[in-house]
Amino acid sequence: MITPVLLCGGAGTRLWPISRKSFPKQFVPLTGEQSLFAASAARLTGPDYAAPVVVTGSDFRFIVTEQLLAAGIDPGTVLIEPSARNTAPAVLAAALMLAQTDPDALMLVAPSDHAISDPAVFRATVARAVPAAKAGRIVTFGISPTHAETGYGWLELSATAGADAVPLSRFVEKPDAAAAARMLEAGHFLWNAGIFLFTAATFVAAARTHAPDLMAPVEAALRQAQPDLGFLRLDPAAWDAVPSISVDYAVMERADNLSVVAYDAGWNDLGGWDAVAREMGTDADGVAVAGAVTAIDCHDTLLRSDSDGVELVGIGLRDIIVVAMDDAVLVADRGRAQDVKIAVERLKAKGALQAEAFARDHRPWGHFETLALDSRFQVKRIVVKPGAALSLQSHHHRSEHWIVVSGTARVTVDQEVKLLTENQSVYIPLGAVHRMENPGKVPMVLIEVQTGAYLGEDDIIRYEDVYARGQGAKG
Amino acid sequence: MITPVLLCGGAGTRLWPISRKSFPKQFVPLTGEQSLFAASAARLTGPDYAAPVVVTGSDFRFIVTEQLLAAGIDPGTVLIEPSARNTAPAVLAAALMLAQTDPDALMLVAPSDHAISDPAVFRATVARAVPAAKAGRIVTFGISPTHAETGYGWLELSATAGADAVPLSRFVEKPDAAAAARMLEAGHFLWNAGIFLFTAATFVAAARTHAPDLMAPVEAALRQAQPDLGFLRLDPAAWDAVPSISVDYAVMERADNLSVVAYDAGWNDLGGWDAVAREMGTDADGVAVAGAVTAIDCHDTLLRSDSDGVELVGIGLRDIIVVAMDDAVLVADRGRAQDVKIAVERLKAKGALQAEAFARDHRPWGHFETLALDSRFQVKRIVVKPGAALSLQSHHHRSEHWIVVSGTARVTVDQEVKLLTENQSVYIPLGAVHRMENPGKVPMVLIEVQTGAYLGEDDIIRYEDVYARGQGAKG
Repeated sequence: MITPVLLCGGAGTRLWPISRKSFPKQFVPLTGEQSLFAASAARLTGPDYAAPVVVTGSDFRFIVTEQLLAAGIDPGTVLIEPSARNTAPAVLAAALMLAQTDPDALMLVAPSDHAISDPAVFRATVARAVPAAKAGRIVTFGISPTHAETGYGWLELSATAGADAVPLSRFVEKPDAAAAARMLEAGHFLWNAGIFLFTAATFVAAARTHAPDLMAPVEAALRQAQPDLGFLRLDPAAWDAVPSISVDYAVMERADNLSVVAYDAGWNDLGGWDAVAREMGTDADGVAVAGAVTAIDCHDTLLRSDSDGVELVGIGLRDIIVVAMDDAVLVADRGRAQDVKIAVERLKAKGALQAEAFARDHRPWGHFETLALDSRFQVKRIVVKPGAALSLQSHHHRSEHWIVVSGTARVTVDQEVKLLTENQSVYIPLGAVHRMENPGKVPMVLIEVQTGAYLGEDDIIRYEDVYARGQGAKG
Repeated sequence: MITPVLLCGGAGTRLWPISRKSFPKQFVPLTGEQSLFAASAARLTGPDYAAPVVVTGSDFRFIVTEQLLAAGIDPGTVLIEPSARNTAPAVLAAALMLAQTDPDALMLVAPSDHAISDPAVFRATVARAVPAAKAGRIVTFGISPTHAETGYGWLELSATAGADAVPLSRFVEKPDAAAAARMLEAGHFLWNAGIFLFTAATFVAAARTHAPDLMAPVEAALRQAQPDLGFLRLDPAAWDAVPSISVDYAVMERADNLSVVAYDAGWNDLGGWDAVAREMGTDADGVAVAGAVTAIDCHDTLLRSDSDGVELVGIGLRDIIVVAMDDAVLVADRGRAQDVKIAVERLKAKGALQAEAFARDHRPWGHFETLALDSRFQVKRIVVKPGAALSLQSHHHRSEHWIVVSGTARVTVDQEVKLLTENQSVYIPLGAVHRMENPGKVPMVLIEVQTGAYLGEDDIIRYEDVYARGQGAKG
């Protein structure tokens, strides 16, 4: 049995505006029906695979379980990193945890934001790596290159790749065009995809040798980890002392027991809008479109409308990337796709909420979005999952009108509890202790109209919360 | 005294998505605080000017009076064209109307969608045209050309323009680049701006001679015109028989009594996004921006965010036009700005509402916009002007919840009439006869949540309407 270890704590900005810190690209259905994370988990299921270990940030924990359950996948263990420490500590925490019950447990470590076009070929490739991993090798999967790519790291093999794992000679940093061309030609070079197979004991031993300063704080964070509503939260104080370092730098580039298995089918790291355009597929003019798009005389251009209700028109464009949402629009020269991260920094600096957040806010009980916001009132659409409940709460500065427009709500206002169905409303006076629940089997949709002098999410006093959130924390 | 005759019935599509059929460019503050129409009316006020005659379509009549009153301008006479018939019938109707009281009335006919940078210079230029107009000439204003423009028609003068009006030799259709360069060089050619000064009798006589088939139907439409809430509505049946033709083709290019006065200051027809970019002004890199825009390394590019809350980012762009709104985004090569009208045709063909309409709908009593729309519910923000009232109405298919969030509403539900203020709500059951009014001195803002199986605007039975609209007509 192989345990998938899915890393999904990242919050890259290169796919802004679709990918934002509050809901990053791995959770978005970027090129298909499923999110990249759900697809990553789904391709590592079957008779050879145990339930996954998912390592993620606190903000994403409910998204992870929701997407796994929606895909029919056992959520396994969700390890919560109290803060981002890059990949080495995350992998080490997973390895130490698995080693507690089985030092020989096979771990397939993978990012959760790549596209892999043929899951069956990928699983067969993983199977070919198992003997070497069982023999104590760190097996890395190399992608058979299709062009002289300068945007990836490469792997130099000690021999041409075959059916079995081949020892690695060295990692090659992102090359220039000439070096990339030579490597493509040479035949014993593959792209480094950051996907690994090894036993828990192999990795722990390698980390002990090559990254000894990681050991004590990660061990402490795991030893003092708190189970929390089905998640395992690494100890924040111990985690604070963990150095932030990638698994490549900390272990892989120093270890001498690496082997490579070649994966010879479609792979894409979706590391920028240019890569996304390639993955989406283009027409004869090189135009890739998604959503409500009208393209007139465009060439080698990406046109995405990623919000319902946004009509995007492109006229006479060449080598342009356009991503349109209802609160943010990116238009970039295709050769400058990597500079999106600079733009996001600029937006952050000027205080634009769109730099990191969406209008739709995901919560353990469902989600909400602001439909209208004024200095004295706010209108929200709130969607509560079947069986879910918001905390019992009150506000100092606002009154609320609730109108149920779909499903059934159980509403508590001070001493009174009543059921509301479609087209029924209730008024929550300022100061009243109230709660909203969905006792039904379908999502409940409610329009909330708030009025008051202060409408911030932190005007909240919590009396009870099934999700164990604190005072003033987001509702 | 000169009577401004402002033509503002047009609904061009070349400035989509800001200009749409339901609210075209002349009513939008495109390059300043004021709308182009309001600016056009404002520049023709003062001791020499009478109140304007505005010729517009039925859909725009309340916008016209609202914008004039907001600018502190006497609305004068608003002539409503029952349907669009191009400019010749509109000018003739105004001339016939003015001739009824004073055949010698001076008419300054102008489009309402041009930018004129110096109103005082413009008025002084008009004053210079008065003697010729009083002497029975049709005076057209020619713009002193600043470059060899191929997008405009030109005027050939019989002599170099001076302080007084000079007889016109001929109109020149949009030239090619070489011809434009020759005319610029020659010195006795000006751009045709479509602005004219003449007496009512002069124009009527010219029309009788050169466009005799216009006379009878326009005279009939005016004779049978109906006063309607302060507007004068030309008779729809008579107007139906009026040929659709421009004033240039019908009269100007055929008459032999044209003279030209040169206007030697800033003018821009804002005929496309490229022209708008020039008018907005650019930075050293040729970049023009408006709204929430982040431009990184762009050149000769227009970047506009024209909806509150839309962050627009441009990276590495050259000769690109971007106009971003929350429901539509245009990205075009600058050389293709005129093809926007093709895009609008495509959007119409595919049934996209954005081709012609906005989320915000203007009504005589105020405006509303849809915040959320689902198959079974709709949320609207409704703003009612002080003193205004919606019709007394009922619906077959929907119930409504009203929550006042700003100002005061007087609400009628069947037999009951009550005042609601901020944070108060009322429920309108299906079938109840109801009305919403704003008895106050400040705008009233109300959130309406509709639920029902059919939510179209045409589910309306009207019992009383101060704006005299019919059954099923928009609410």
